[in-house]
Amino acid sequence: MNQTTRQEAGARPGGPGLELGIEVPSRVPTHWYNLNADLPEPAPPPLDPATDEPIRPADLEPLFAKALIAQELSTERRLEIPRPVREVYSLWRPSPLRRAVRLERTLGTRARIYYKYEGVSPCGSHKPNSSVPQAYFNLVEGIRRLTTETGAGQWGASLAFACALFGMSCEVWQVRSSYEQKPYRRLQMGVYGSQCHASPSELTESGRRMRERFPDTTGSLGMAISEAVEVAAKDPGTHYALGSVLNHVMIHQSVIGLELLDQLAEAGEEQADVVFACAGGGSNAAGIIFPLLGRNLREGSTTRFVAVEPAACPSMTRGEYRYDFGDVAGMTPKLKMYTLGTDFVPPAIHAGGLRYHGMSPMVSHAVHLGLIEPIAVEQDRSFEAGVLFARTEGIVPAPESTHAIAGALDHATSAGVGDGEVIVIGVSGNGVLDLAAYDGRF
Amino acid sequence: MNQTTRQEAGARPGGPGLELGIEVPSRVPTHWYNLNADLPEPAPPPLDPATDEPIRPADLEPLFAKALIAQELSTERRLEIPRPVREVYSLWRPSPLRRAVRLERTLGTRARIYYKYEGVSPCGSHKPNSSVPQAYFNLVEGIRRLTTETGAGQWGASLAFACALFGMSCEVWQVRSSYEQKPYRRLQMGVYGSQCHASPSELTESGRRMRERFPDTTGSLGMAISEAVEVAAKDPGTHYALGSVLNHVMIHQSVIGLELLDQLAEAGEEQADVVFACAGGGSNAAGIIFPLLGRNLREGSTTRFVAVEPAACPSMTRGEYRYDFGDVAGMTPKLKMYTLGTDFVPPAIHAGGLRYHGMSPMVSHAVHLGLIEPIAVEQDRSFEAGVLFARTEGIVPAPESTHAIAGALDHATSAGVGDGEVIVIGVSGNGVLDLAAYDGRF
Repeated sequence: MNQTTRQEAGARPGGPGLELGIEVPSRVPTHWYNLNADLPEPAPPPLDPATDEPIRPADLEPLFAKALIAQELSTERRLEIPRPVREVYSLWRPSPLRRAVRLERTLGTRARIYYKYEGVSPCGSHKPNSSVPQAYFNLVEGIRRLTTETGAGQWGASLAFACALFGMSCEVWQVRSSYEQKPYRRLQMGVYGSQCHASPSELTESGRRMRERFPDTTGSLGMAISEAVEVAAKDPGTHYALGSVLNHVMIHQSVIGLELLDQLAEAGEEQADVVFACAGGGSNAAGIIFPLLGRNLREGSTTRFVAVEPAACPSMTRGEYRYDFGDVAGMTPKLKMYTLGTDFVPPAIHAGGLRYHGMSPMVSHAVHLGLIEPIAVEQDRSFEAGVLFARTEGIVPAPESTHAIAGALDHATSAGVGDGEVIVIGVSGNGVLDLAAYDGRF
Repeated sequence: MNQTTRQEAGARPGGPGLELGIEVPSRVPTHWYNLNADLPEPAPPPLDPATDEPIRPADLEPLFAKALIAQELSTERRLEIPRPVREVYSLWRPSPLRRAVRLERTLGTRARIYYKYEGVSPCGSHKPNSSVPQAYFNLVEGIRRLTTETGAGQWGASLAFACALFGMSCEVWQVRSSYEQKPYRRLQMGVYGSQCHASPSELTESGRRMRERFPDTTGSLGMAISEAVEVAAKDPGTHYALGSVLNHVMIHQSVIGLELLDQLAEAGEEQADVVFACAGGGSNAAGIIFPLLGRNLREGSTTRFVAVEPAACPSMTRGEYRYDFGDVAGMTPKLKMYTLGTDFVPPAIHAGGLRYHGMSPMVSHAVHLGLIEPIAVEQDRSFEAGVLFARTEGIVPAPESTHAIAGALDHATSAGVGDGEVIVIGVSGNGVLDLAAYDGRF
């Protein structure tokens, strides 16, 4: 790279000023994949809770960029990834696909085990795959501030990261119990220049109302959503961002599976026989599974997909498939999904990213059609698998990711595993900021 | 990669059983570089403190593998990296070299700024570059257990990681104050299967003696060294490992600079004009600098090298160049180095890896010869630079690394910076487990 390749335009927002002339490796995907183009029947639409009619794009415009709404409703197969987004992606993409040779030997399995590792992102998880385009598409429409909610903080930190790189403001409402008990993610948001508030806060009407009614509350994701949405709805220069569940998030995450297809081919594998991915709101599972599922549907390949959820929050394996609210407070459109009901209170398991009462409508639809098999794993078993993974492959996986590892390991050591079967594990993040969860487990 | 490339031999120790048939990218170096081959005069040897005579290889054999002692005394320019070590290196090597375009624009500098980023390793720093070969060379000589000391825990975690992957035992004595205040690194060692003891402990004679004399002590690196060395010296199947200072560690770390030379050429840069690296014990600075310094000496290229130390622990800029003990207790051979004296007590700065009274003899020698320029940076300035780096380049740097960034930024914005000057920053690690150090700095 020499000086002349560096673009000099610097105007913001929009236009070529957002491109920095950074070299992007050709292996970083140029387009996202949209499963809606290949499904045998479309996923049921979100409903306006007042009318029970399908929601209209204009209803979403106070909160979301038009480009993101268009993605939400799109049935195009390939959606172009803007160059400024690919420039940021190239900080960590393509993420590695590795053969887990030490793990295979330790297990004595006949299978070949690979893992696709999203923990290499600057925030340590797959979340920036969507925070970066969400920030970008808002910025080009003139939005300079984003709000969001976060539980343990993975999504909040990822949005803070994206906003820092595009010069945007970001305000995050973090569930008060996490805000107080896990200061590292909050500090990460602060270093990236975002403001992080403990929720419920005194800064919003809904926050003040909550604090009045429940003075001792330690908060919930539902309360935090209410605060973030309220602030965005009141200011035309501010939008809201969501880190999972919605279709446009599933689309952004497809970079994982698209890279996986290329990398398996490079490794000389015709196809993955089975993919294991953890699923909370569904963004990680959709990201690694959908591009391969689309290939199954279009080309007749026969990869199996297993979505692994915690036994303590079993929306897919024990929930109902019906319309329900996406948030606890009942403010969002109604979504057709596997749900435990908005009054389900998940226990305080360590995998904070898997504590959600529902499941992405697109993932739910694929499960309902029998295209993805859900299983549930106990927390003790998942950490046991995580420790073995760390000691053989050298990486401490996120508590969420240990669920996928446990599912894969149980399969790889079962009587039914095929000779030379190709198993792929989606490792959605590293567990560096979750090491306390491993205490007493080794 | 297909099944037939997987080697089936599994015997340990030594032999092909340590090779797993993992594909190693060609860009992972095949040889380490040894600056001792190119220096105009050899570095003064370590002395036996009893006789003040140069130490003999046999004196070191109770503690170190013969292969590592041979490296310590070698004047060969290129030393082969065994394939099993390269297989582990390939988990994160080559580490990225990136152009810091957002940072350049924010500064408005005329320089081109690159950074070489070691934070992508599974432990988050450059330390595994040496822990992996140290574990390997011990294992092939029949050693099954390693001991070491650690302060904040970067080195301890890196040795634990290496021992896990080679199936070895590892015991780490961690300074009690860090053990109690910073549990994450200790948990990391535990997940990797190592035992981590608070030092001083009841497990060793020297530990018990210390606790008797100073019942309230929170420990020191000197005490922890004594404990780790005592355990290794008493058991023929156990050796001791050190994460910095010694020549063989500097040699292992040369992979950083060797990759940098290739990557600069790929980027179309003839040479780096100046390299900034933080220096505590010297392993990071030697790693990125020595291969380029060797090129200066052999081929007449003109790269400048700046080693950045904290103003609070200024061994190179304010210390004396003389023989001194490597540890506080005076148990090691005497080393010719820049030193603040073994009774110097560094203040509790956040960059724990830079709190050392001395400096690697090889780095000291190069500084003494005028081949490396030392500068000192205040802690507040270094964190300010770290925050700017995070907000522009997306990575939260380790407190140690912020020193190099501060030095580089001050230069890039100075009147003296050349048009199109190529500045390289060695970013030795990420600051994810040091986020508490950033509190109140944004």
